[in-house]
Amino acid sequence: MIIDCHGHYTTAPKALEEWRNRQIAGISDPGAKPRVDSLVITDDELRESIEKNQLRLMMERGSDLTIFSPRASFMAHHIGDFQVSSTWAAICNELCFRVSQLFPEHFVPAAMLPQSPGVDPATCIPELVKCVEQYGNVGINLNPDPSGGHWSSPPLTDRQWYPIYEKMVEYDIPAMVHVSTSCNACFHTTGAHYLNADTTAFMQCLSGDLFKDFPTLKFIIPHGGGAVPYHWGRFRGLAQELKKPLLKDHLLHNIFFDTCVYHQPGIDLLTKVIPVDNILFASEMIGAVRGIDPETGHYYDDTRRYIEASSIVVGDDRHKVYEANARRVYPRLDAALKAKGK
Amino acid sequence: MIIDCHGHYTTAPKALEEWRNRQIAGISDPGAKPRVDSLVITDDELRESIEKNQLRLMMERGSDLTIFSPRASFMAHHIGDFQVSSTWAAICNELCFRVSQLFPEHFVPAAMLPQSPGVDPATCIPELVKCVEQYGNVGINLNPDPSGGHWSSPPLTDRQWYPIYEKMVEYDIPAMVHVSTSCNACFHTTGAHYLNADTTAFMQCLSGDLFKDFPTLKFIIPHGGGAVPYHWGRFRGLAQELKKPLLKDHLLHNIFFDTCVYHQPGIDLLTKVIPVDNILFASEMIGAVRGIDPETGHYYDDTRRYIEASSIVVGDDRHKVYEANARRVYPRLDAALKAKGK
Repeated sequence: MIIDCHGHYTTAPKALEEWRNRQIAGISDPGAKPRVDSLVITDDELRESIEKNQLRLMMERGSDLTIFSPRASFMAHHIGDFQVSSTWAAICNELCFRVSQLFPEHFVPAAMLPQSPGVDPATCIPELVKCVEQYGNVGINLNPDPSGGHWSSPPLTDRQWYPIYEKMVEYDIPAMVHVSTSCNACFHTTGAHYLNADTTAFMQCLSGDLFKDFPTLKFIIPHGGGAVPYHWGRFRGLAQELKKPLLKDHLLHNIFFDTCVYHQPGIDLLTKVIPVDNILFASEMIGAVRGIDPETGHYYDDTRRYIEASSIVVGDDRHKVYEANARRVYPRLDAALKAKGK
Repeated sequence: MIIDCHGHYTTAPKALEEWRNRQIAGISDPGAKPRVDSLVITDDELRESIEKNQLRLMMERGSDLTIFSPRASFMAHHIGDFQVSSTWAAICNELCFRVSQLFPEHFVPAAMLPQSPGVDPATCIPELVKCVEQYGNVGINLNPDPSGGHWSSPPLTDRQWYPIYEKMVEYDIPAMVHVSTSCNACFHTTGAHYLNADTTAFMQCLSGDLFKDFPTLKFIIPHGGGAVPYHWGRFRGLAQELKKPLLKDHLLHNIFFDTCVYHQPGIDLLTKVIPVDNILFASEMIGAVRGIDPETGHYYDDTRRYIEASSIVVGDDRHKVYEANARRVYPRLDAALKAKGK
């Protein structure tokens, strides 16, 4: 089985975006604020949006199951207050849940949280609980910068985040550390902010001792870990300067990288440098880079091709990257699959 | 000849740091403000600080010439106002100039600028002019984020930066795009902020059309280009989405990467992905990562070893990376060397 641990509902029916625009207009003009029940998206619309897009490409590319969360760039936690984020997260999470019900063989949901800059992360817990207990979510997306590029929250090692970690440990769910749209003109969202956040999150963990407090806490750093594997020597050296243990002992029981790296040399670097047990297959399609690479004639984000062409990830290692690691990092996914005899 | 295009005066005599601390104290307590002439560093002290450190390692490692600029993390443009930065830049640039006079075969200076958050970059021009005309500087360090991790300046493509670019073009000097200390708790200076800035600067150039306005402007992106070469497929794909030309046409006449990547697989990725004409040898020693890699028994930042061990950079390509590219990107360095018959 091939599990893609990084998919977002980037193809939701237009009505969702229109509702969101009305919600945003309602922040400055309360009279324009839309009711939640004014958003009506039918099962047929959901089915069509998936069958024509993600599911079609999964079939073409040969992946079986996607861990599916709301569109990352649409989380936009910096917009409005907690109530705005809370309503928006509930709507988006419900849609991913409905997709998982319509296509139970192919989609398993992961939740966005109703984060809001300057608001205690503990306020996210009711939504998290609902998503795990009622919607069967197997993971969450945690935004280390709900300000959208101003980085006004404390690092992930700060105790303000601990209530979320306590709940993650209790449920045994991992977090993908994933920012949203940048509203800072310096940072292009998918070309700078996403990758910077990946590097930043890793370095926050490296500088701290978070996993001493939470030995079973698990983070997936997306986009191949940002700059981290490319600079693995630098990070090993920095850990040494900071008198931390070797990275394999300090971080690699808890931190995992996905394979959203959109060319063969990048995947080869990732798989050469990072232990295979820490790499989870992912494509983030249909996402930041939707085109066809003129150098290969294939989609940039068809990451399975890079794994298939790898001379590093072979034999049982390929099974680990495609399936076994995801089942280990997402125990609730593993349990759900086992319950179906898979 | 082996030219290291990325060296900072990280080993300056302690008196420099002590003077800076007094300068910082003087911001809130004007009575404590030190006079510039209260800082006295003798030629013998300069010689010792270099001979025991950078020059010793250059001899051991076999590099001949370092493009030498003030310590990056000490620039700290976020501290104080323009006057504070201006005084501090003048002192630091003078020291690098003196080092270049004491060791003319081994050090050529590059300037820091007296940038200050919210202050027009054009105010940096007198210092730049002095450094080029009187001190023989062959390049500058340009900080895209003088706020130190708050990213409150506009992107490098913004017209506010154009006065600096006009002067760079006039003098035919390149800029290394290099941030300084992070005062944002989210960003570790050398483990996150530096790499993020590299990625950010590249993506700013990718999104814009700066090099249409300045076809001969040249940037060196340090630290191996941050996350860029590792995600070269992503950036090629993003350029495509943004309807930009191929990266080789859009950016690679103007953007160059150094080799400050501290492990063999990283250097191999860099040299495989980026055209050899765009790679300049550098080590940034004695810098962020000063230790010995237990996996190799050699210094992490002894980047010459990685080039020597490369099966990608061979023959004439090695000469390009070590010398010819630097002479092309820094024409004033080339002219100075030629004047000496080199």
